[in-house]
Amino acid sequence: MMRIFGDLGSGNCLKVKTTADTLGIAYAWTHIDILKGQSRTPEFLALSPAGQVPIVQLSDGRVLSQSNAIIRYLARGSHLLPEDAFTQAEIDAWLFWEQNSHEPFVAGARFQRVYLRQPAEHVPARTMANGAAALDRMEAHLGGQAWFVNDGPTIADIALAAYTRLAPEGGFDLTGRPAVTAWLARCDEAFFDHPLETAP
Amino acid sequence: MMRIFGDLGSGNCLKVKTTADTLGIAYAWTHIDILKGQSRTPEFLALSPAGQVPIVQLSDGRVLSQSNAIIRYLARGSHLLPEDAFTQAEIDAWLFWEQNSHEPFVAGARFQRVYLRQPAEHVPARTMANGAAALDRMEAHLGGQAWFVNDGPTIADIALAAYTRLAPEGGFDLTGRPAVTAWLARCDEAFFDHPLETAP
Repeated sequence: MMRIFGDLGSGNCLKVKTTADTLGIAYAWTHIDILKGQSRTPEFLALSPAGQVPIVQLSDGRVLSQSNAIIRYLARGSHLLPEDAFTQAEIDAWLFWEQNSHEPFVAGARFQRVYLRQPAEHVPARTMANGAAALDRMEAHLGGQAWFVNDGPTIADIALAAYTRLAPEGGFDLTGRPAVTAWLARCDEAFFDHPLETAP
Repeated sequence: MMRIFGDLGSGNCLKVKTTADTLGIAYAWTHIDILKGQSRTPEFLALSPAGQVPIVQLSDGRVLSQSNAIIRYLARGSHLLPEDAFTQAEIDAWLFWEQNSHEPFVAGARFQRVYLRQPAEHVPARTMANGAAALDRMEAHLGGQAWFVNDGPTIADIALAAYTRLAPEGGFDLTGRPAVTAWLARCDEAFFDHPLETAP
């Protein structure tokens, strides 16, 4: 059976759990507590040289890293990753944008506030500005369509919802972004219908 | 014919040009000068709502964004993206790592130094430390193998070489990283054998 190593408080880890749950892929879960150094032990670094979660270990022992690479692998052949090459490239574009222009800021602010328990004023202004810009871009895109790519849910929605739904914990206000809020409700119904712990 | 919109001084844009050149994909090139605001004109924003380069416009008019999504699309079916699903997932993992843990720092420092003409001391210490850590991780990985995934060149090498070969312009020293240096020479031969402008 596949094993997921992760922390349920991490949006990146939730992407993998959510994709597996949505597609009915069986897995065992191993909790890795980052703040307790469990991602820096020799045993874990042997599996994940970058010391990052999530990783998955397939039943044959091979290991995959990077949340978006993992969910793309798990979703192949399913409705969450349609076969058409151009559609896949549009999904990929959102996945890369998420890792470069969304997660470092939206998740970064939350990491400082929730994990490191720092006050709001410790989060750099640039982090908050770039995070707000990312959320604004999502709002503009979702003003015209229900899901990020085409007319149904894909791994692009899972990847983007993972930290967007936790954005208020980083100090971002979603109430002024009605299209994002409505899309998150659709994502909750499609993906996140099981209660999940979100505290670290 | 496909059209690439980009700036030859940008590693992200070079990834697309290099992949097309390597695979013999014909294209027309439209230069977009970021510093002159050409990525913020109404005409360009109509093609690229995020105002980012590179983008490609296919011959049917459809547009793709995000360098790594573009090269993954262009490389499908070629030796640069082998068919095996697990191999593709390993390539994807490096592509996402590049956008999240390498480009923001290695390219970010260069952007400040070369594009914005700022002195070295203006580059945040965290940017330099994270960039050095990314290069160290590459050095460790390449100590054991000639290419990033399996035994031949893939788009993972193109994506990672694009800014790594320009890292000295950001103040990073490659001389103490012999495996990276040797790999860059292999990449030059495989991908970058035509002289390219690198100044902004």
